[in-house]
Amino acid sequence: MLDFNVSGLIPKNMEKRGELVFSENLKEIEDIFNHRKIPENGLSNEKIRLFLRFLSMMDTDKDPKSIRIGEREARIVSSVHDELSYGFCHGVGRSGNLIDPQPKAPGASIMYSLTNKILESFLKTLGIDVYGISTPVSTGMSISLCLCAARKKYASNVVIYPYAAHKSPIKAVSFAGMKMRLVETVLDGDKVYVPVEEIESAVKKEIELGNNPCILSTLTFFPPRNSDDILEISKICEIYDIPHIVNGAYALQNNFYIEKLKKAFKYRIDAVVSSSDKNLLTPIGGGIIFSKNQDFLKEISHCYPGRASATPIVSTLVSLLSIGSKNYIELMKNQKSSKKLLDDLLYDLSKKTGNKLLDSESPIASCISVNSNPVEIAAKLYNLRVTGPRGVTKTDKFGNCYTGNYIYDYIVMNAAIGVKTEDVVNAVDKLEKIIL
Amino acid sequence: MLDFNVSGLIPKNMEKRGELVFSENLKEIEDIFNHRKIPENGLSNEKIRLFLRFLSMMDTDKDPKSIRIGEREARIVSSVHDELSYGFCHGVGRSGNLIDPQPKAPGASIMYSLTNKILESFLKTLGIDVYGISTPVSTGMSISLCLCAARKKYASNVVIYPYAAHKSPIKAVSFAGMKMRLVETVLDGDKVYVPVEEIESAVKKEIELGNNPCILSTLTFFPPRNSDDILEISKICEIYDIPHIVNGAYALQNNFYIEKLKKAFKYRIDAVVSSSDKNLLTPIGGGIIFSKNQDFLKEISHCYPGRASATPIVSTLVSLLSIGSKNYIELMKNQKSSKKLLDDLLYDLSKKTGNKLLDSESPIASCISVNSNPVEIAAKLYNLRVTGPRGVTKTDKFGNCYTGNYIYDYIVMNAAIGVKTEDVVNAVDKLEKIIL
Amino acid sequence: MLDFNVSGLIPKNMEKRGELVFSENLKEIEDIFNHRKIPENGLSNEKIRLFLRFLSMMDTDKDPKSIRIGEREARIVSSVHDELSYGFCHGVGRSGNLIDPQPKAPGASIMYSLTNKILESFLKTLGIDVYGISTPVSTGMSISLCLCAARKKYASNVVIYPYAAHKSPIKAVSFAGMKMRLVETVLDGDKVYVPVEEIESAVKKEIELGNNPCILSTLTFFPPRNSDDILEISKICEIYDIPHIVNGAYALQNNFYIEKLKKAFKYRIDAVVSSSDKNLLTPIGGGIIFSKNQDFLKEISHCYPGRASATPIVSTLVSLLSIGSKNYIELMKNQKSSKKLLDDLLYDLSKKTGNKLLDSESPIASCISVNSNPVEIAAKLYNLRVTGPRGVTKTDKFGNCYTGNYIYDYIVMNAAIGVKTEDVVNAVDKLEKIIL
Amino acid sequence: MLDFNVSGLIPKNMEKRGELVFSENLKEIEDIFNHRKIPENGLSNEKIRLFLRFLSMMDTDKDPKSIRIGEREARIVSSVHDELSYGFCHGVGRSGNLIDPQPKAPGASIMYSLTNKILESFLKTLGIDVYGISTPVSTGMSISLCLCAARKKYASNVVIYPYAAHKSPIKAVSFAGMKMRLVETVLDGDKVYVPVEEIESAVKKEIELGNNPCILSTLTFFPPRNSDDILEISKICEIYDIPHIVNGAYALQNNFYIEKLKKAFKYRIDAVVSSSDKNLLTPIGGGIIFSKNQDFLKEISHCYPGRASATPIVSTLVSLLSIGSKNYIELMKNQKSSKKLLDDLLYDLSKKTGNKLLDSESPIASCISVNSNPVEIAAKLYNLRVTGPRGVTKTDKFGNCYTGNYIYDYIVMNAAIGVKTEDVVNAVDKLEKIIL
Repeated sequence: MLDFNVSGLIPKNMEKRGELVFSENLKEIEDIFNHRKIPENGLSNEKIRLFLRFLSMMDTDKDPKSIRIGEREARIVSSVHDELSYGFCHGVGRSGNLIDPQPKAPGASIMYSLTNKILESFLKTLGIDVYGISTPVSTGMSISLCLCAARKKYASNVVIYPYAAHKSPIKAVSFAGMKMRLVETVLDGDKVYVPVEEIESAVKKEIELGNNPCILSTLTFFPPRNSDDILEISKICEIYDIPHIVNGAYALQNNFYIEKLKKAFKYRIDAVVSSSDKNLLTPIGGGIIFSKNQDFLKEISHCYPGRASATPIVSTLVSLLSIGSKNYIELMKNQKSSKKLLDDLLYDLSKKTGNKLLDSESPIASCISVNSNPVEIAAKLYNLRVTGPRGVTKTDKFGNCYTGNYIYDYIVMNAAIGVKTEDVVNAVDKLEKIIL
Repeated sequence: MLDFNVSGLIPKNMEKRGELVFSENLKEIEDIFNHRKIPENGLSNEKIRLFLRFLSMMDTDKDPKSIRIGEREARIVSSVHDELSYGFCHGVGRSGNLIDPQPKAPGASIMYSLTNKILESFLKTLGIDVYGISTPVSTGMSISLCLCAARKKYASNVVIYPYAAHKSPIKAVSFAGMKMRLVETVLDGDKVYVPVEEIESAVKKEIELGNNPCILSTLTFFPPRNSDDILEISKICEIYDIPHIVNGAYALQNNFYIEKLKKAFKYRIDAVVSSSDKNLLTPIGGGIIFSKNQDFLKEISHCYPGRASATPIVSTLVSLLSIGSKNYIELMKNQKSSKKLLDDLLYDLSKKTGNKLLDSESPIASCISVNSNPVEIAAKLYNLRVTGPRGVTKTDKFGNCYTGNYIYDYIVMNAAIGVKTEDVVNAVDKLEKIIL
Repeated sequence: MLDFNVSGLIPKNMEKRGELVFSENLKEIEDIFNHRKIPENGLSNEKIRLFLRFLSMMDTDKDPKSIRIGEREARIVSSVHDELSYGFCHGVGRSGNLIDPQPKAPGASIMYSLTNKILESFLKTLGIDVYGISTPVSTGMSISLCLCAARKKYASNVVIYPYAAHKSPIKAVSFAGMKMRLVETVLDGDKVYVPVEEIESAVKKEIELGNNPCILSTLTFFPPRNSDDILEISKICEIYDIPHIVNGAYALQNNFYIEKLKKAFKYRIDAVVSSSDKNLLTPIGGGIIFSKNQDFLKEISHCYPGRASATPIVSTLVSLLSIGSKNYIELMKNQKSSKKLLDDLLYDLSKKTGNKLLDSESPIASCISVNSNPVEIAAKLYNLRVTGPRGVTKTDKFGNCYTGNYIYDYIVMNAAIGVKTEDVVNAVDKLEKIIL
Repeated sequence: MLDFNVSGLIPKNMEKRGELVFSENLKEIEDIFNHRKIPENGLSNEKIRLFLRFLSMMDTDKDPKSIRIGEREARIVSSVHDELSYGFCHGVGRSGNLIDPQPKAPGASIMYSLTNKILESFLKTLGIDVYGISTPVSTGMSISLCLCAARKKYASNVVIYPYAAHKSPIKAVSFAGMKMRLVETVLDGDKVYVPVEEIESAVKKEIELGNNPCILSTLTFFPPRNSDDILEISKICEIYDIPHIVNGAYALQNNFYIEKLKKAFKYRIDAVVSSSDKNLLTPIGGGIIFSKNQDFLKEISHCYPGRASATPIVSTLVSLLSIGSKNYIELMKNQKSSKKLLDDLLYDLSKKTGNKLLDSESPIASCISVNSNPVEIAAKLYNLRVTGPRGVTKTDKFGNCYTGNYIYDYIVMNAAIGVKTEDVVNAVDKLEKIIL
């Protein structure tokens, strides 16, 4: 496509070297186009920028000879807009079919298609062999999309939700206009979980009521709430032939979750929703939905009403290209050691302060019981510029995911992917200053 | 907040001049913070960039002393991400309350709040005295948000939709999980419209069925479909006490629509949805919702499941700051003359070719009848690099918004805000080449 | 060189459109490589950026497989450096031969070679058929380069300088380590000029003293100083066989100067020095040297001690690509009308205030006599934020270019290329406020 | 200077946090203004960009109320120009006094003044307590500036140059229009050096001839050429009262050179010239001149004919702010270990190949003798994408810095500051492949 004539300007041998270096630089970009996989080693920002520009230079609003006479022609008034969208001013989607190619935007359409392919190769790298799409909305809204698709494809009208104290999925159900049946949590030592039998019994009840239930399970959540037993739930969904949507917001960063997913995928999962910012370190705004069921993914993509901003898709693509598979594995290792460090430090602190490092199964977050008001402790931490800890009182029903009182007041801290060792150390240190 | 010590480096009088120029430059930015209105004259891109940086430098992920120990800490892996979000990596929203301030992101929260205030001042400039919010999703999804709020606040469960051949609002209803009752269009000369009495009768029927209807009216659409008579619909909604959502996707660019809105706002309108890209020339991805009813706007903002990308909000802000009120008025004038030019050229062409410039009321788009297949003509235009025209056959029921056959095959062209005079001329010229 | 595989990602017809738009976009860039001329219409900033990136991606420091083991390997510590040099980190030049290709920097070498070719085509557009080089230093230092070359090639050891009150060329002579013989100015009505006979007589004297003189004439200067009669000086230089360097700092923006150059080029001119910022609206830092004598240009380029920053060369290239020949002609026309306006306004002001619009031949600047201290008036103008006017007292020998007293105190104002009409109006208005 | 009103937009406590984070971010910038020293820890690129923007926003061409009526008003035609100069479009210097503040450019003037102060603090960090200026030209041209100043201040007219085979300083002398007296090198084992007595004797001879000599000594050079004995030369210059300019192109990166400088500064050094790219890892284009003699530095700065591009100064500033003193020390340590590694690897290679690692004193570069044509070996290395090695034949008089034949054909490799360990390893590896 691109052919420069540089002959005769400098000596032939230098010219050849220049062309060689140029080709070598473009090779990484061409490799992405050819292999359509996450690169082993991340690309430099400069290359990523060039890659994105090449693509957005294919959109018709960039055509110097185009004649634009529609009501929506990706006209922009500021080059800041161009920066915010990397030139993908037409957004993504066509008449609300999110992944459908848009004739006005061949570049954005290729970009989106490539992103999904690269995303799939990334999931494969993690051992998850599925179809995937990048969505232009975050986890919550992506869950709404899945539920809407479940309604359209399977006439689902009620969502069975093993209770987790998170407003987004609850709102996602409400936004999609579906009813929700909560299944209560119970206590097992320090841990909080939802018994599979209760979930099955909820399914049965809804079916008896003449409804078409689907299940929205939660794989990733703050301890002391366990992950839902998605393997058993998948079996239930298979048996009762009902859709199963998994909220795996930060499931891609730790093998604990990945292994659970791999096993459950043998039974019925219609879609797993993950967050691009939590797993792939993008700015907030995008989601990832993956499934063995390509038709269901298509249905999801057809639910979206209208076009959407291309930026969250581009952000996901940027992360995949920038991190590279090798480095992602490294980041996962670091997350694991950070969690170990967090546990060790909190254990020491619990010994010093007569508290308890709660027994929990989360590979990301840890809980320590406290003797004074945990909400006030969290507020103090915020004032000490520690962001992220969550303070929950034993009587806070919403927070505890438990119908009765919980056994401890506690603080949750996270060693999520990308956390810095020094932040783990300093956060526990600040907590010690407050509670000792 | 900012105090530089430049003393002693250059002569005092130059130092004073430097500080004066600096202040003069910052004054435009400070004015935005102080007045919280659309500026009369647009700001330069450089100033807008600085303004956005100042704001995003208030978010906690920029705090060099912060200790970040949450599961979502706006960690990003590439400076391209920073560019794509202008540093608002935490997105907008808190637990799915879109406009609620986010403690981790004071800067983004201020940015969002300011955007809404500036948006309101912009609407006031146009003569529309309402509350307004910028949404991080386009028209279609913004309609879903309004419908969801109508359900939550007024228990609406069915949407009465005076038929317009547009997939996005239809999907918006479906996505929100609501039923739809279409009201058919009828023909009046060349024009297609939905009789108000039929709408009222649809309302009555739904009420009789024990439903809680709301109306989704269409203000802006392709001719020959007229605008819905939103004044009369607003009266009906007031009488029957039912919510009224107006799809005014490109209503802000022409006084024809604005006047209709002003009149209808005296009766019942719960929310008007407009597009940020169609009216404010942003990349695709954001919406604008406005209303006299601040509580309903709040309800809308509380429907959103989770946080959202800040980028569409930032894009709307960039447009408001970049265009300025004076220039927007100018752009509106140009749109009007472009439409006049389009009409004149299409009229001439119709005389030459024995066709008809259809009689329609749209202040944006025009229709010309054609003697051969209009879909093929549109395809030919696409190949001649004309983007935007729409070709509709008389037998295309979906496209015609009409239950029977329409009277003509026709082509629609748009002289929307921002269109270039030469594009109007060239588009008609290309059409002539095809149909003559 | 560049071949993307986008097949199979979107429908074939869209793919083709995407490739077409991409090619169309790259065509302007390819045209520059192929034609090596100033484009008729300027390129967009986005295209210019891409063009520069393509070139700097040919330098060996960008080679992902390079092994760098020299003492100077264009290592940079910040991406801000990359921005400041657009990636041409190796600078320009090789062992102090400025235009020689640098094996480590094929891209920068091509960039420099192309810039010179495009510069030559620009000069040709203006009617000046010469060889030209872009220099990485401003007018003053570029004059030093020319003088050094005259010494090396012709053993010149003394510079005959028809006096003009400008420090830069005087320093340029001193920097090159050459002696200077001033030739005094005389008065002709309001005008100040240097008689050609005096110049010739200076040449003779130096030759008699056994020296090898060269002449540094001044084509562009503030009135009331006339342009030197470069036609006659060129004849003298031809007759006496001595080098002739012309200081034509802002000679390219007005045909008055260009015509003088074209005539004089028939006789002896070794080099003309112009400013890239004054003529081509770059930031300060680069120069332009042109000549019929390619060997002398080569000698000049060989005088430079070491490598130099690529940025001033890149800036000149950016201007040539950005402005385009058509728009440059337009800018020249505007300059002419601005000068007419300035004259008219100053004439009116002179009538109102009992002063005189001085009779002068400059096509750029105008002088008005004043009744009070002109230096104080200039200072007041500076305080009123008028930059650029020059106030000269009749007794200021340096400023007046005249050995005795001048006839008036006066203020000089410039309507140089790029000046805004409103600035002309406002500047005269402020002057009126001060002197009325 | 900057005061935002963000009150009332978000809750007070968040507002306070936003302001705190903002202040914290600006603090690093304010610290630079207040302390005017190299920061201990480098600033992020984002902060550096903001810092530069704040400064360039003080220049009068950014004044929205300015009226510009001069012939040179920093008008630019492309935002690429703005990027290339970071907005310092007026360049640096006033009437050719390089460091003099420019009334049209208070921001650039402050920037330049600050750069020089920060540069001095950097030199102090290295243990060199001197005055310093950043120059907008590279080492070669900076040497010309020093020589020109020596002529103006001390009437120097001949440069005594202990021979080093480098074209740039030789051209620098020629460019400044001064005569050169070479002092020949002699051999000492493998090393090549210039005997101090010969230098003294050259001084005497020139004085006897009625000339005013100055000495241009070479501190940093490729082995086998030793550093000149600048301590003894400084003593000679003190005794004979003649100027002493030291070419210390890459002297700041290794204590071997710094210690020599510190000792010699006790006697007479008028100026040391260093390279910004070689020591501070900027793109090529700037220099550093430092001295105990502030008056001489001022004289140097007054020699420059005209204004100059601000970009090389900005690049030096960017490096100082970006690296930080702590990291610079680290880089110096790494350079030392890289040199050790290079020596070890070359020693091994010499044993394997029957060659010799030449005995030399350079702390940067190493020489290995070879058995075949070293120029061809260097060419082969270039083709293997190794840049930087220098191949010198024993009969190459220019290259050997020695009047007779040298004892070996040899290859020089450099472990300069910033070199990557893998490049050292790979370069020697490639050499082995060629010569084994």
